[in-house]
Amino acid sequence: MKHDGPYTSGVPKLWNATIDAHRNAVREAVLDAAAALVTERGLAAVTMSQIAESSGIGRATLYKYFPDVESILRAWHERQVGAHLAALEQVRASSAAPGAALSSVLHAYGFICHARHGGALAAMLHSDDGLAEAHRRLRDMVTELVAAAASAGEVRGDVPAAELADFCLHALEAARVLESKAAVARLVAVTTAALQPTT
Amino acid sequence: MKHDGPYTSGVPKLWNATIDAHRNAVREAVLDAAAALVTERGLAAVTMSQIAESSGIGRATLYKYFPDVESILRAWHERQVGAHLAALEQVRASSAAPGAALSSVLHAYGFICHARHGGALAAMLHSDDGLAEAHRRLRDMVTELVAAAASAGEVRGDVPAAELADFCLHALEAARVLESKAAVARLVAVTTAALQPTT
Repeated sequence: MKHDGPYTSGVPKLWNATIDAHRNAVREAVLDAAAALVTERGLAAVTMSQIAESSGIGRATLYKYFPDVESILRAWHERQVGAHLAALEQVRASSAAPGAALSSVLHAYGFICHARHGGALAAMLHSDDGLAEAHRRLRDMVTELVAAAASAGEVRGDVPAAELADFCLHALEAARVLESKAAVARLVAVTTAALQPTT
Repeated sequence: MKHDGPYTSGVPKLWNATIDAHRNAVREAVLDAAAALVTERGLAAVTMSQIAESSGIGRATLYKYFPDVESILRAWHERQVGAHLAALEQVRASSAAPGAALSSVLHAYGFICHARHGGALAAMLHSDDGLAEAHRRLRDMVTELVAAAASAGEVRGDVPAAELADFCLHALEAARVLESKAAVARLVAVTTAALQPTT
């Protein structure tokens, strides 16, 4: 593991005990730096040299981790989606009743979408194959919650759970274009209303 | 207007009376040919030469109309979206009652999304600025319909019409991933259920 002196001084945490932990720390620092640069300067303006400098490693080292800017941004986005999934799992675990767990997860997901408001980066990567796996996990989680709530009579049983999950996830994407948190709360309420058992 | 002999024989309609109509006919033929080639061979495999040959004009002529494959596909997509909007306007005009008009438009839009099922082309162009205008027109149309239906007491009035329109358009995008027409009909029913006045 080679480091180029001048840039490492500010990031002592990179000098960890094990190679694995060290590599991981470098990787995380690169992703943080890339995300900050893209937010600040825009997608098109960011280069490998800037990311290297900003993450406190040499350019040659950076190329040992990632071949190009796009692969860094893809890895960053995967990390984001993974963090969102973990947060949703926690929300889910905090409610015992299936209907309440579903409501809480949909609410949390609505606000996650809202936080990605205007994300050019997310839009660019949205059709990416790399996200297919994360999206599948999200869809599976919501499908399970819908099925459990339907079994408990808290959600309509006349539409397959997977279809209702797709409906919810697509509907809540509208939170991206909403201006206020109040509007996001209304969106979650409208989406949830569609799941009510038909009488 | 120059034409390269060998390819024009199959497309006599290109020889129209006026230059404008002629140019339009060439343009339409190019868009049709490009769309067919992309569907058949995939996005990456299509070249300007293939499009020229397939639309029955010379390569030099094609370059007078479009600088590259991407601009052809963008024009094709704009034409598609324009046609969808026109179809939705017709559906809207066929119902006098606002609630019925809204239901019909949402139903038609669900099936339009479904028809774009798996469209790699649409996904590629989806984040395109050129679509912003078409999307705004669609959103305005649905917002007007929701507002009229809410005034008539047929749709909930506790959420702004524009927010309900965004909800509907995002929710119906789920039709892209649905396998059957029956599933699309269920999606439209679920989406519409969310709009019911709260009691």
